[in-house]
Formats: sequence, structure tokens, C-alpha cells
Amino acid sequence: MRPPAPLKSENHLYEQVAQRVIGLIDRGILRPGDRVPSVRKLSLQQKVSVATVLQAYRELENKGLVEARPQSGYYVRPRFLPLPPEPEISKPACSSTKVTMGDLAVQVVQGQRDPSLIHLGAAVPSPELLPMAQLNRSMTSIGRRSPLLGTSYEAPPGVLLLRTQIAKRAMNQGWTLSPNEIVTTCGAQEALNLCLRAVAKPGDTIAIESPTYYGILQIIETLGMRALEIPTHPRDGVSLEALTYALDNHSIKACLFSLNFNNPLGSCMPEANKQRLVELLAKRDIPLIEDDIYGELGFGPTRPLPAKAFDKKGLVLLCDSFSKTLAPGYRVGWTAPGRYQKQVEQLKFTSTIATATLPQYAIADFLANGGYDHHLRKVRRLYAEKVQLMTQAITKYFPAGTKVTRPSGGFVLWVELAPHINSTELYHLALAAKISIAPGTIFSAKQKFQNFVRLNCGNPWSGAIENALIKLGQIIAAMNKR
Amino acid sequence: MRPPAPLKSENHLYEQVAQRVIGLIDRGILRPGDRVPSVRKLSLQQKVSVATVLQAYRELENKGLVEARPQSGYYVRPRFLPLPPEPEISKPACSSTKVTMGDLAVQVVQGQRDPSLIHLGAAVPSPELLPMAQLNRSMTSIGRRSPLLGTSYEAPPGVLLLRTQIAKRAMNQGWTLSPNEIVTTCGAQEALNLCLRAVAKPGDTIAIESPTYYGILQIIETLGMRALEIPTHPRDGVSLEALTYALDNHSIKACLFSLNFNNPLGSCMPEANKQRLVELLAKRDIPLIEDDIYGELGFGPTRPLPAKAFDKKGLVLLCDSFSKTLAPGYRVGWTAPGRYQKQVEQLKFTSTIATATLPQYAIADFLANGGYDHHLRKVRRLYAEKVQLMTQAITKYFPAGTKVTRPSGGFVLWVELAPHINSTELYHLALAAKISIAPGTIFSAKQKFQNFVRLNCGNPWSGAIENALIKLGQIIAAMNKR
Repeated sequence: MRPPAPLKSENHLYEQVAQRVIGLIDRGILRPGDRVPSVRKLSLQQKVSVATVLQAYRELENKGLVEARPQSGYYVRPRFLPLPPEPEISKPACSSTKVTMGDLAVQVVQGQRDPSLIHLGAAVPSPELLPMAQLNRSMTSIGRRSPLLGTSYEAPPGVLLLRTQIAKRAMNQGWTLSPNEIVTTCGAQEALNLCLRAVAKPGDTIAIESPTYYGILQIIETLGMRALEIPTHPRDGVSLEALTYALDNHSIKACLFSLNFNNPLGSCMPEANKQRLVELLAKRDIPLIEDDIYGELGFGPTRPLPAKAFDKKGLVLLCDSFSKTLAPGYRVGWTAPGRYQKQVEQLKFTSTIATATLPQYAIADFLANGGYDHHLRKVRRLYAEKVQLMTQAITKYFPAGTKVTRPSGGFVLWVELAPHINSTELYHLALAAKISIAPGTIFSAKQKFQNFVRLNCGNPWSGAIENALIKLGQIIAAMNKR
Repeated sequence: MRPPAPLKSENHLYEQVAQRVIGLIDRGILRPGDRVPSVRKLSLQQKVSVATVLQAYRELENKGLVEARPQSGYYVRPRFLPLPPEPEISKPACSSTKVTMGDLAVQVVQGQRDPSLIHLGAAVPSPELLPMAQLNRSMTSIGRRSPLLGTSYEAPPGVLLLRTQIAKRAMNQGWTLSPNEIVTTCGAQEALNLCLRAVAKPGDTIAIESPTYYGILQIIETLGMRALEIPTHPRDGVSLEALTYALDNHSIKACLFSLNFNNPLGSCMPEANKQRLVELLAKRDIPLIEDDIYGELGFGPTRPLPAKAFDKKGLVLLCDSFSKTLAPGYRVGWTAPGRYQKQVEQLKFTSTIATATLPQYAIADFLANGGYDHHLRKVRRLYAEKVQLMTQAITKYFPAGTKVTRPSGGFVLWVELAPHINSTELYHLALAAKISIAPGTIFSAKQKFQNFVRLNCGNPWSGAIENALIKLGQIIAAMNKR
């Protein structure tokens, strides 16, 4: 129920209430991360209406002093420094490219295995935020109950129990997906491969976001396709105006976008835009491959819908996985490939025959009984905090002129440095200082974003990470001075 | 130690000893599958030398009455009927083809899920011959000991423990393979995909066996490559003469052969031929992708070497898996791709990032501690028996004129029917009678082998299977009469 509007006479009261809270924060009585008194409590305490307290808290929120957490209340934000500006919308070249990725992306991922490094490179979820013990227990008890499960191939479309759970989640989000429309895969990576192969041939042009996840560029490269980068806003995602222009002027075979918390931007396309995007492509009969692996990791109160929810013609091929939220090493993903389902199933069968059986059952069990939503609420909050801590440290330790994104989900930051900084050089200098980062060029088919880096915020915050950011800031400052 | 040669005076004794055993068999005292008295026991009992008894048993073996099993002794053979003739060497067309597989192969595999059918179609190992309980226990204890294992990607080349065990097995077979030369995959199917993509491009021609496993044809089709079928002998495999001719007259980019117990033939290329094959291709710098998934399932006393053992130039890309011997549903395979390793690793990373972690560890554990060799000795013997029972039933129940292979490993039979029989029609008639079989045309890029069927002998022998073969024989006889 909406609270009633505050009385006229109380118009200044909310400011007084806000000032009291600011005083508590200033004097260190309320510290970053603390919960501020509940609306009801403060209303009783200060003898003002609930509406006044709410208004006071909204004021504090606007000032960046507190933040609302869904179903939990208001909390003191951990930072006070004014944040650096955000990068602007990207301006990629208006021509398609045969993709040729170097070894750099592979090096970044392989760096992940080196225990001597501070890992800000690969975008991996925080191990302590994954319910491995519970999942492994599920796998054990399933293997014991049904020892024959591992003896056969779960040929496409894959384990029905898991597909049913996935379909239920769509229903709970307010849209419809049938278990029969879903095909399980070896992670979202296989799903993206299969979908691209189902809709396009070598030589065809695929429209992608700019910047885009390097794994997608590698798929396009190995399939011999071409990439066309579309201007992408760091908050709202792909520019539909630019996309329309590109569609008018290029022969685009398919789009491959990550609309919810694009990696590396953390952008989220507004719902109205998603709807327009689906309509725009439907009119031209162009398939949209939607990579939604970060969709569950938004910082807002509700999970944003995938574009697939607006798909009426079966032209959206939704790809997703449990690698960012549950277990990367289980290699379980899925796709809802719309009208391309038959092709995708055949390609899946030909590529890997089936996805490993027991991991699929274990995840289905977790989804049915493990409190996935509770788990997600927790990790969303924690990733929001990690991203904020990292943003704060960048604000403190990186040279003036640095720009940084305000991701609304996921766990990476996209950082723009001074124009002349070469992030590949920075990557090597940082590596020499035992810090791994992801240089900007690997996120572009045309090696743009030379002065950008992506930083992973997934790992547990620590002094070592803070020190690494101090060191990075020093390296960048030294490069700035040359 | 070799026994001394029998004394001259005992020359007729061995015949007497053999006659005694034949008498025991004739009177049903020793029945098919029974072990005959040990050499030592019979030697004491009959007061003849060990050499005489051995000679008697060799005589019985030559007569097809008993068979030696490695480290186990002699057993009464389960059949007495003279077997039908074998199919001849294949005579494929001498031109390459763009592969277009229909749905038939997919239907055959999907039939596997229908519990109302008698399954003679898909080539799947016998569930009761897979050590699932032990593997699942391994997985459990590994997950408990190292709960963080599932949290990270085991990026290419994959789990080192498993690669080390695989390398050790090569060493025990008398050839050298380093763990660093191995890349783990989602089954051999992924390995074959990656290797083909590493060595050839769409439009390139791949030389294959004739007949060849339909899964390989599907890979070639989905990768947009062409297939050239090479005449293949049902016992000795690919004809090197025919291959040489093909190499001289076609632009062949790579060969993809299954030299040990080719599916569907069960052929095994003699070692000298393997060596010649590797040299032949090395001279022309043409890579050989070697599918060795049945290599461990030979009926002879020693495991045949893969061609990879003779590879000096890194031109052999060996592909293998544990799906036929341990756990199809674990989806763990591997490849040793020689000089193409870097490309294969990059393609693996781009296709599926990594293979599921825990299944790799569980298999490594079984290889290290589970008695894999003991397990293999057992299943080899049992598959040999299953193949023999099925051969015997075909001999009994199929019309005269039927030809059938003498596989030296694996668990399928390749059956040639009268020339005018259409096996696709037979497939549908059999399906109506609740029997699934694999029609011959799906084993050819040019839909040859119209009058052939492949029968899976993997399942436990039962009255239901025998009845299915009686029924199949009747359907074929009826077709013969038209």
C-alpha cells in the first residue's frame, strides 16, 4: 500500500529527520553497512508520520548516504567520495569485421590459475558465494538413489526435471516458457555456439554490443563469422537508433546481445527498449540471441525480464547458465531457441551428444528444494557491496580523469583511463606487479577500447585487493605522466 | 615358461584326451560357457603330460569347441552352428560428397529412450557392466574433500590428475604420451569436433571409412565439410591401397578413421598397416584423426595399439573417451591432438570453456585406484560372449543368404541382408514390432548399405532379445519373398 502524502505542515520535518540521521552518520554512530532505524521505529521515536520518515530516507538516498535493500530496509552506504564520471556511449566503427582475437583473452583467463596473482582479470563469481557443499550433497544422494543415471546419455533436449524447474522460474517472473522449449547445454558458452550455428553461416555478419564479452568474439571468430559493433550505452545498453541505422545499411544475419548486465558494462536495457528491440527485429525476421547469464544478479529489487519474454515469433534464442550463480565447474547451461529448436538440438547432439547427467539433476534439485531465490537475494546484495567497495577504491586510488561505470548488476567494472593509456601495456605492467586485469581491447572486434580495463569485483574484498588497486593506480599515474 | 614339446609316444594321447572332453560336451555334462578342467588337473587325472593336455585343448579350440580366455583357462564355446559368411570389403563411390544426413540417425538414438522397445539400435554399453556405484562414490568423496572444486573452470587442457592417468595407461601399453599432450573434452564427440575444426575448413574433404559411425557423418555435415568414403575390409579396416589411390586423385584435407573395432564393422587394422598408414600420411603431411573409443574393448589377449603410437610428426590426433567403458553420462573424453594442440585448446575453450570438473576427478580416481584393467578384462569377456550369442541367434533365425561380421572387439554386429532388402523399410517394420535397429544407410555419406543393418549386442542377453531376433528374422524372410 502506498503511504499517504505528507501533511503540508510537515514539509520541513523530513529535513529535520534527515539531518538527525546525517548527524548519527557523521559522528560514526551509524557506520557504513549499518542498518538505519526502521521507518516505523523512527516515526514513533520522532513523533512524525511514516510518510515523513520515508521522505527523509528518500532524501538521504538521493544524497548517496543510505541505500534501500529490498525487503530489508535502509542501510548506510559505504562511501562518501563523489564518484568519478561514467564512460560515454561507445562509438564503434560502422563496418563489420572478420574477427581475429589474439592470445590475450586466453592469457587473461589462464592467469586465473596462477595462485601468485591478485585476480582482477577473469570475471568469475566469488567461490564463497557458491553453495557447493549443498550441490555436491544433492549429487551424492541422487547418484545413490539412482545409480543407473550416469549410464545413459541424456540426449537433447536434456534432463526434464531441470527443464521443468527452469520453466517454473520463468512463470514466477511473469512470463511463459514450456519445459519442451528448453535444451540443456554444457554451459551458456555451448548454448551461444549452438544458437549462432543454428541461425548463421561462416561469412555472415552478427551485430554485437560494443564493448562485448570476449568469449562471444572468440565464438564468432572460430565460426568464421563477421562482427558488427553497435553503439552501447553504459547504463541502457544497445542504442536502438544506432541498431536501426545498422540494420538499414548492413546485411545483418543475427544479433547477439546481453541485455541484462552486459559484461563488461553492467548495463541493463530498459523494459520498453527490450520490447521495441524484439519488435524491430521481428519486423525484419532477424533472430536475437540473448545472453542472459547475469540476469539473476541485478542490484535492484526485481529481476529484469529477458527480451525472450516479449518474443511472439520464436525469433529470440535465450541462452543462460548456472555458472555465475551456482557452480561454474558443473558446466550446466541451457537455451530456449524458439523456432530454431530442432536445429539446436541436432547441433547439440552432434557437438557433445549430451550434457553430463548428474550435475543437471543436482542443479534441478537445488532449484526445487535448495532455496535458490533466498540464495540469489543474498549474493545480489553482496555483489552490490563488492562493486561499491571496488568503485570506492578506484575513486580513491586512480588518477583524476578516470571514468567508471555504475553497473546495475553483475560483478565487473568497466574503467576508462586517460586517452593515451595503452591497456595492453598496463596489463603487462600489472602482471609484473602480480596483478591480473582484463585489457579493454579484448572486448572489441576492432581492438577498440585501448584505454579501458575491466576489473572483476567477484572475489572477497581484502587488504590484498585494496593494495593491488593502490598499486594499479600508481602504475596508471606513472603512465599518465609520460 | 613354454611347456616342453610332447613326447613322440604321446602323439595319439592328445586325441584321446580331446575325445574325452568332446564326450563330456556331447552328453551335456560340460555346457556352453562352462570352464573345462584346468590343464594341470586333467594332466593329473589322465596321467598325461601338461603338454599333451595343452595340445588337446588347442585341437578343441581349432575345432571351435572351446575357447581360451586370457588368464582364466579354456571354456566351452556357446555355439556349434556353422556361421554365415562375412560381408566383403566395401566398394564406395570414388567421389566426395557434401554430407546430408536425414533425421533417421537422430530417430535411432532417440528410440533409445522408449522403454517399450527392444533396443538393438543405438550402440550403448550394457548398463550392468558400468561401475556406476563406485564412480559415484568417488565423486562424492572428492566433492566432500575439496568442496571448492566445482567453483572454478578447469580450463583447457583440463584436470591434470586425469591427464596423468591417461598418460600412464599409454606407458603401460608400451608407448609414450605426456600429460601435457592431452586435452580433456565433453566426450569423444567433442574431441572429434574440435580436431576436425582444427585441421579442416568448411568445404574441405575428409576421408572416412566405409561404413562409418553416423555421428562422424553428422559432425562432417554440421561443419560443412565433404566426405570421401574409402573401401574398408570388415576384418582389417581401411584398404591402404584404396586410400593411396584416393590420396593421389583427390584433395584430401584429413582422414578420420576408427582403426580399433570400427563401429559398425568391428574391424581392427593390423599393426603393420597402422604403421604404414601413419607413414603414408606423414609423407603427404595429412593429419589423421583417430577415433579410438572402442580400443579397450577388444576380444583378444592384448589391447591393440592406436596409430598414434607410431606418430612421429604430431600428425595423429587421437580421440578417446570413457563413455564405452565407464560412464556415458559423465561425458568425459580426451584428445591428444599432436601439433594441433594449441588450436584444439582454443577451440575447446571457445566451445564449452571446460569439461565438468567432478566427473573428471571421479574417473581419474577410478583409473588410479578402481581396478580399471580388472574391470576391462571382465567386460571384454562379457561383450565377446554377447556378440557370440547374437551371432548365433542370427545364424539360427535369419534367412539363408544373410552375412554377418566377425568383430574382434566392441559390441555391434554388421549384418548384410539379401540385395533387394531396404533396411529403412525394415527399420520401420521392426519399429512397428517394437524392435529398434540401425538401418545401414545412416553409416554412409552416400546412403549406401541399403541392405545392411547394425545390431547392438551391448544389452544383457534375454529371452526378449532372442524373441526380437526371431521376429526380425520373420520380417526379413517375408521381405525376401516379395
